Amino acid sequence: MSTRPSSDCCFIAETIAIGSELLVGGRSDSNSLVITERLGACGIEVRFKSIVGDNRADIVNALTTAVQRAGIVVITGGLGPTIDDCTREAVADATGRRLARRKEAFEGMTARLAQWGRTPNRGQLRQAMIPSGATVIPNPVGSAPGFAVSWKRAVLIALPGVPREMDAMMEQSAIPFLTAHLKRAANPRRPPIVRRVFHTWGLPEADVDARLKGLFSKRTPMDLGLLASPTGVLVSLTSNVRRLSGAVNIELLAEQVRKRLGDWLYAEGPDTMETVVGRLLSQQKRTVAVAESCTGGLISHRLTQVPGSSAYVDRGAVCYSNTAKTEMLGVPAELIARHGAVSQEVAASMANGIRERARVSVGLSVTGIAGPGGGSGTKPVGLVYVGLDGGVGDTVTKEFRFHGDRSTIKQRSSQAALDLLRRWLVGKGGA
Amino acid sequence: MSTRPSSDCCFIAETIAIGSELLVGGRSDSNSLVITERLGACGIEVRFKSIVGDNRADIVNALTTAVQRAGIVVITGGLGPTIDDCTREAVADATGRRLARRKEAFEGMTARLAQWGRTPNRGQLRQAMIPSGATVIPNPVGSAPGFAVSWKRAVLIALPGVPREMDAMMEQSAIPFLTAHLKRAANPRRPPIVRRVFHTWGLPEADVDARLKGLFSKRTPMDLGLLASPTGVLVSLTSNVRRLSGAVNIELLAEQVRKRLGDWLYAEGPDTMETVVGRLLSQQKRTVAVAESCTGGLISHRLTQVPGSSAYVDRGAVCYSNTAKTEMLGVPAELIARHGAVSQEVAASMANGIRERARVSVGLSVTGIAGPGGGSGTKPVGLVYVGLDGGVGDTVTKEFRFHGDRSTIKQRSSQAALDLLRRWLVGKGGA
Repeated sequence: MSTRPSSDCCFIAETIAIGSELLVGGRSDSNSLVITERLGACGIEVRFKSIVGDNRADIVNALTTAVQRAGIVVITGGLGPTIDDCTREAVADATGRRLARRKEAFEGMTARLAQWGRTPNRGQLRQAMIPSGATVIPNPVGSAPGFAVSWKRAVLIALPGVPREMDAMMEQSAIPFLTAHLKRAANPRRPPIVRRVFHTWGLPEADVDARLKGLFSKRTPMDLGLLASPTGVLVSLTSNVRRLSGAVNIELLAEQVRKRLGDWLYAEGPDTMETVVGRLLSQQKRTVAVAESCTGGLISHRLTQVPGSSAYVDRGAVCYSNTAKTEMLGVPAELIARHGAVSQEVAASMANGIRERARVSVGLSVTGIAGPGGGSGTKPVGLVYVGLDGGVGDTVTKEFRFHGDRSTIKQRSSQAALDLLRRWLVGKGGA
Repeated sequence: MSTRPSSDCCFIAETIAIGSELLVGGRSDSNSLVITERLGACGIEVRFKSIVGDNRADIVNALTTAVQRAGIVVITGGLGPTIDDCTREAVADATGRRLARRKEAFEGMTARLAQWGRTPNRGQLRQAMIPSGATVIPNPVGSAPGFAVSWKRAVLIALPGVPREMDAMMEQSAIPFLTAHLKRAANPRRPPIVRRVFHTWGLPEADVDARLKGLFSKRTPMDLGLLASPTGVLVSLTSNVRRLSGAVNIELLAEQVRKRLGDWLYAEGPDTMETVVGRLLSQQKRTVAVAESCTGGLISHRLTQVPGSSAYVDRGAVCYSNTAKTEMLGVPAELIARHGAVSQEVAASMANGIRERARVSVGLSVTGIAGPGGGSGTKPVGLVYVGLDGGVGDTVTKEFRFHGDRSTIKQRSSQAALDLLRRWLVGKGGA
């Protein structure tokens, strides 16, 4: 049952992330996702991911394992100047090669350091040591060069762990190198792995599942993925390279997915709720202001993560205390006394208050109980009201009952409020 | 050079996370960090982490690899009710066992579902299928049971991928099971792996390194780790189990680290800047209000992530437009015209304005240029002023020049502002 190298093996890849802090949790391996995406575009499927510490014998073990099951092995990390960094030595050990200072690696590194007005120190000199017979991969961003080496039936590519450096080297050198390698090794070439991602909000996973039922036949070489998260259910279509039987028009399937998900679909691909809302506000030349209670500033933070958001975000009021709601937004104290701070009435008044004060097109509000304390029998933790005021006669409020910890409830509440704004904007000006 | 099983092998562990979405990036493997911590407390070191998709042959491959280099293998994921979930089958394949419905697994699952008023469907019945000879690990939170099985010289433990379920089963069943196993297999038992984490802000990595130079001799069985991030440099002390030569008093070393880092050290262990600031505010019965420009609500969001923060956070004003600064905080329009919105003077006026309006002990402010647009020759992207007003004659401002993208600059700015508040609170009332 174990995966043996085959003629298709050069389309199977493994990533090996090196660094003890990846094991214990100071840092997470974000590089492997970028590598998966870039290799996928060449028809190469990452089937295994490994993480090992800065331990020479363990790295050798991981390399030896990887070449038995993958034709392309991309190693990240362990190329730095300190004594901990032993990827170079481990590759030399594993492949039975010698390490020697390589002219082009040394020159590239000294040129880079010279730009910063520095000369290489002893540690950095180690970075120019490259296994014999390897191809040097220049680093256009940092000092550590990478390299590529053939071993057994696999190609090993070693890149630095710094994401910016890894990314640039992957694009500028590793991918062209691999493309040339595949051209020599494999015929015919594989079509790229295609993947489309759809973000929904407001439907439970089972309902999303039901809407997508029978989207394509079991023989279609396509995988449908569903994943629930605090920002909604994510749907993905990925071409299945193991069942590849001719081209599938993913665009036609994507169009079907859009139709079936309807307005529960709020974004596609790398877009987020805040980029989508920002785009709609920009297109419609509308401005927004936000009044937040339980989300504590998260909605304003998300809106202002988008470059250029100062064009449409005027202001935000985080009103944790009741006094603040009255003073900053003009919510009548007697309204709070009558209905409670967490109520439809107060949500509406907050949205209206911030819109009038900021003189913007639309005011958005949230009031709720994020917990873990502050809940009661009639108003439990997770009860949240969102409100929107778009001018006279144009006020909407919605009630939600969320589950989860404080952070999850804040996250879901911010998503609900931004979605209310998105739907309102779509209604005003089209998607 | 490769790691072979040895008598110490039962103290070497590997985690295998199963799920195609872990490969392509819909979800990240947070379980392995929890497992690493829990096993470390038993003296077991996680040296390898693997990730594979929902592919039976690939899981068999990963299992076969793992038992060659680790004595304890913890598998997460692939125990769900859908046809994709094939961890049970893969373990049976690899170990040459049969799958059969196990009474205790079935009863536990039906009891759990009955609590939710449901009966098991066909998929869920699959969850009661357990490899012959395995020990069933009950799931006190969800429906999928786990199991433990001995194979070759290793113990395999299979747990669900849902973090809440994995965590509960690890604590209640897997750890007691492993402790008993180690007692039988290994003599003497290993001391626990100890780890202390220290969070610093404001010192470059090289300066932190210099301060900690010569902290302990090379023969001390301890590792010192440094890791730079947008929230500062993280320092860790971890006992090195491979050089273990008698107990080291980590508390004495931790005390040394604290002395050497001085007030650049803002938190330890799981604490964050916002929990530390929150604790100081609570202890001193002080209240705070925040006026944010370029951080766009992030400081308020961070402060209100802490349960109970409504006791000391009164309000926040996110003043993206100049008009908002004047209207919400009373910053004189002519002050903005004279010095610019991004200036020491405006930062001070914002802090003062929010403190007076909210009638709190201390007002905190930020104004800056988060980019990528909006910079100029004299006021580049990354120029940030933070301000604090603690009452008459008690105003501080600080200038920063941060690098990075919009999100990083927002993150660093919020950290700088909260650190200013922390230092002010420490000065007022002791740490």
